[in-house]
Amino acid sequence: MIVLFTDFGLHGPYTGQMKAVLQQMVPSTPLIDLFADAPMGDAKASAYLLAAYAAWFPPGTIFLAVVDPGVGGMRPAAIVKADGRWYVGPGNGLFEIVQRRAENALSWDIDWKPERLSASFHGRDLFAPVAAMLARGDPPPGPLRADGADRRPDWPDDLGEIVYIDHFGNAMTGLRAAILGPNTRLAVGDLAFERARTFSDLPPGTGFWYENSNGLAEIAVNLGHANLDLGLVVGSEVKVIS
Amino acid sequence: MIVLFTDFGLHGPYTGQMKAVLQQMVPSTPLIDLFADAPMGDAKASAYLLAAYAAWFPPGTIFLAVVDPGVGGMRPAAIVKADGRWYVGPGNGLFEIVQRRAENALSWDIDWKPERLSASFHGRDLFAPVAAMLARGDPPPGPLRADGADRRPDWPDDLGEIVYIDHFGNAMTGLRAAILGPNTRLAVGDLAFERARTFSDLPPGTGFWYENSNGLAEIAVNLGHANLDLGLVVGSEVKVIS
Amino acid sequence: MIVLFTDFGLHGPYTGQMKAVLQQMVPSTPLIDLFADAPMGDAKASAYLLAAYAAWFPPGTIFLAVVDPGVGGMRPAAIVKADGRWYVGPGNGLFEIVQRRAENALSWDIDWKPERLSASFHGRDLFAPVAAMLARGDPPPGPLRADGADRRPDWPDDLGEIVYIDHFGNAMTGLRAAILGPNTRLAVGDLAFERARTFSDLPPGTGFWYENSNGLAEIAVNLGHANLDLGLVVGSEVKVIS
Repeated sequence: MIVLFTDFGLHGPYTGQMKAVLQQMVPSTPLIDLFADAPMGDAKASAYLLAAYAAWFPPGTIFLAVVDPGVGGMRPAAIVKADGRWYVGPGNGLFEIVQRRAENALSWDIDWKPERLSASFHGRDLFAPVAAMLARGDPPPGPLRADGADRRPDWPDDLGEIVYIDHFGNAMTGLRAAILGPNTRLAVGDLAFERARTFSDLPPGTGFWYENSNGLAEIAVNLGHANLDLGLVVGSEVKVIS
Repeated sequence: MIVLFTDFGLHGPYTGQMKAVLQQMVPSTPLIDLFADAPMGDAKASAYLLAAYAAWFPPGTIFLAVVDPGVGGMRPAAIVKADGRWYVGPGNGLFEIVQRRAENALSWDIDWKPERLSASFHGRDLFAPVAAMLARGDPPPGPLRADGADRRPDWPDDLGEIVYIDHFGNAMTGLRAAILGPNTRLAVGDLAFERARTFSDLPPGTGFWYENSNGLAEIAVNLGHANLDLGLVVGSEVKVIS
Repeated sequence: MIVLFTDFGLHGPYTGQMKAVLQQMVPSTPLIDLFADAPMGDAKASAYLLAAYAAWFPPGTIFLAVVDPGVGGMRPAAIVKADGRWYVGPGNGLFEIVQRRAENALSWDIDWKPERLSASFHGRDLFAPVAAMLARGDPPPGPLRADGADRRPDWPDDLGEIVYIDHFGNAMTGLRAAILGPNTRLAVGDLAFERARTFSDLPPGTGFWYENSNGLAEIAVNLGHANLDLGLVVGSEVKVIS
């Protein structure tokens, strides 16, 4: 299974062209769209989102993950294997949190080059073919990297920021709920939110936070829209009040 | 064929995670995205939309239908078989209109439990696995229900409301065109619309209603956008003027 | 491989119903979503977008292309074969640029009729079945057309207009970069843009144009959004300054 995690959008040609490459190289490998609207151009916020959602997938899953504002520039092209899952994409910190939380992780530089490499769409021209190579069982096309290459030790273990707003207007943070206590409140600006179990535990219109289905602390409003009702956007700072 | 009908959005992780479950359990069953933007949290409006669109699909189709504002609360989990098609989702009225219009309908409670059931994502954890069980030919995992369980006799046969705005700005009602006469007008607020056959029958900019390709009365503006030009939104009341 | 190019949206029922038809008729043929948000109702702008993106796909690809504001009216239904690729859709100029740029092109009228043809959704009822027929190797279901049928010799070879805004806010023109010189500037209203190689060559916030990954001249802002920052929309006129 190849899972797509990008900031490309599902509409427009980018996701479709990547799938056309994969389909031609590994026609029997299933393709799953996980996120096509990861935090745009923001490898740091995306790293926390990816780590939370990748953990749900079985070992052997290949993540084709492209949040790549530096495409065409000097950032490396990377493969990471962490706890049995593969990750292919830009070496810009996108895999930092996956690597940090893994019991076992290795990484490789991609030194394979396609016949034609566009300056702006490495997702299609470079990363998709490499993901397909891994899916058909090829070894990583490039040398193993030294420990610590492209790592971001300056990033925190959990990110006090909104990293995703979903279709319902719920606002995911980069904080794992498991590190927060039952009485922990989360604050955004002047607003503070208590922890609840799920939506139906609260009166309509009430803002709260809860552990979402992938373990992230998420701010929501029962029968409302946290983004519109509370003014939350991707990048809003979230403070932990114990 | 498993058909997805939800209010989850295609972007973001929800549709993708449901498909990952289905893909692992029934890899050779085709998955079709029908609606990922059903009326949000509105099981009643969704029930009319689902009934109109499900009728187009062949017997044997399995609808994984999740519009579930009460997730994590006390609403039942249901399977319905109606005129040869299967429906899996919350027992909150979402299947009321399908059942009411069917010549033959049976329903079951789901009493199977997954190893891990999140409080907020039964689509992934409960309904998707059950849809996959039905796709591989298993019997419904739970007891047959008495006639009338979770039924909504208080809901009308057709709904005088906008239930969906499409990508063109056309506004679908919950009214079947077949129950309306050729001279019937539909009114929203102060605006009244005549019936036409299709877009190209009318001058640009004209608002009208017509029988859409699935039998619903739909309000449109030739070469315009009914939602923007006429102020229509999901939930707008639609009156029938004979 | 059948590639979908429409203005239908991925959300909502249209793309899903077309895929359900294809899935039932040619279950083993891969389906790729290329554009579901082609310029709405604008066959002319869409023709330049389609020609640029179709050229990337291998011979034998079948494009199911529907931008069809005249559906239900008198426009013909067409099949085009151009340089080994097939195109199925309305004969309203949508294939004009593909035909004009092809070394070899033939076209056919579709005279096959489905059992039930809705007035508003020929994509599902007519074009999708015909695309499936071609995918399974059937001959075109209709007579070969004379040279010049439905051609638009009045349309230019390249279109000085914004034809697509992507998820990043980048604005694609209908101009091929290959016909423009390295010092050519593009102007929209009072704004003029220099050519650059890619995003990372420029300071953040700078507007520029570059050759995108499919050969179109595209206006972008490094780490910005050309649509919002520069006021560009689909249809904005683009002038070439040599």
